[in-house]
Amino acid sequence: MREDRERGSYSVGRARREKILDVAIANFAELGYSQTSMAKIAQDAGLTGPGLTHHFPTKKHLLVAVAERRFSMLRELAEEAPEDVDGTGPLRQMVRLSGLLHRQPGMVELFVLVSAEAADPTSAAHALYVARYETVVAALTESFRTSVEAGFLRADLDYDGIARECIAVADGLQLQWVLTGRRIDLLGLIRNHLERLAPAILVSGRAVDLSDELRPARS
Amino acid sequence: MREDRERGSYSVGRARREKILDVAIANFAELGYSQTSMAKIAQDAGLTGPGLTHHFPTKKHLLVAVAERRFSMLRELAEEAPEDVDGTGPLRQMVRLSGLLHRQPGMVELFVLVSAEAADPTSAAHALYVARYETVVAALTESFRTSVEAGFLRADLDYDGIARECIAVADGLQLQWVLTGRRIDLLGLIRNHLERLAPAILVSGRAVDLSDELRPARS
Repeated sequence: MREDRERGSYSVGRARREKILDVAIANFAELGYSQTSMAKIAQDAGLTGPGLTHHFPTKKHLLVAVAERRFSMLRELAEEAPEDVDGTGPLRQMVRLSGLLHRQPGMVELFVLVSAEAADPTSAAHALYVARYETVVAALTESFRTSVEAGFLRADLDYDGIARECIAVADGLQLQWVLTGRRIDLLGLIRNHLERLAPAILVSGRAVDLSDELRPARS
Repeated sequence: MREDRERGSYSVGRARREKILDVAIANFAELGYSQTSMAKIAQDAGLTGPGLTHHFPTKKHLLVAVAERRFSMLRELAEEAPEDVDGTGPLRQMVRLSGLLHRQPGMVELFVLVSAEAADPTSAAHALYVARYETVVAALTESFRTSVEAGFLRADLDYDGIARECIAVADGLQLQWVLTGRRIDLLGLIRNHLERLAPAILVSGRAVDLSDELRPARS
């Protein structure tokens, strides 16, 4: 019973935190990060000022929490990935993931901002961001290695480096997407990169078509 | 005569500006951007406070000027590129360029910071940065197209997109280089990406070795 209650209370706190984050992301997307006030977020989330700052002391904390949510999504998606049946699994996973992030308005802009913030080693976000980033690189590397063990991907390549390249393409193109006012075909360019990468890493050396992964999920 | 004098005065101002930038970059590299004061930069450059702020009103202006210098270097290198004799010219250019940036301590960190700054649309750096960025994408796209016209590169590909991918890899890996405390092989990973890209864009479809471009230039 006690355990249930604690879990319940934890869930309520977590749900409120998630609600605040939803409200913050919506406001950041609409008004821009710098133009959004903590007062407005509190109001839209149905909280008092102290109610909000109990969860997120400053707007920077919200920005970091957005990054954390993004990293969690990445991790969950990596864990939920269907078994790789032909070596294209990790690439399909990258495309699905990019599509998912892309469909959340404002998330890309916020991620670019938080990367910027975290790149400054004196920033509070730095250490957390570094750790989370390495987790994502490690997860993607691991999924490549699983496909190597299954005999689908070449065993003589540096998959940590390839994972970093895939993530760099996604990060770098997101920066360009923000800088060009969303005028580049972000998902198309990410997909092109992965489709060109495929023959170089597949044991079969064959061409692949990743367009199916860009259709919205049915769930 | 008058023209000579004006040119002379312009050169002196320009030389002083470049000197200040050298001092600023060295300080940013050693102390970090946020820990470097305008007073320290003025002192090291042999200027009074007002002497410095005449050229750069704030530290943010210095940060933007660092980005401008980087973009100028990119443009100059693009213009100086030897004629492409086999279709690998634009790729060799990217590797040389990355090597050049990599050899300047602190420039990578500063570029990551300025990207961050510029990604915020309310920032003073935004418009300038957007324009300079597009110049670099256009220059690289143009050099791919020249190689297409020479018959070396496939004519059926989206070279604007490929240029954006190459720049994204460099930008994204630079972010990771900063986040990992320079523990990744930045130039090796950039080179690997371009060597995998080559067979996909060359009419000949052949493999290429870009390692020669990583040797320091003799000049």
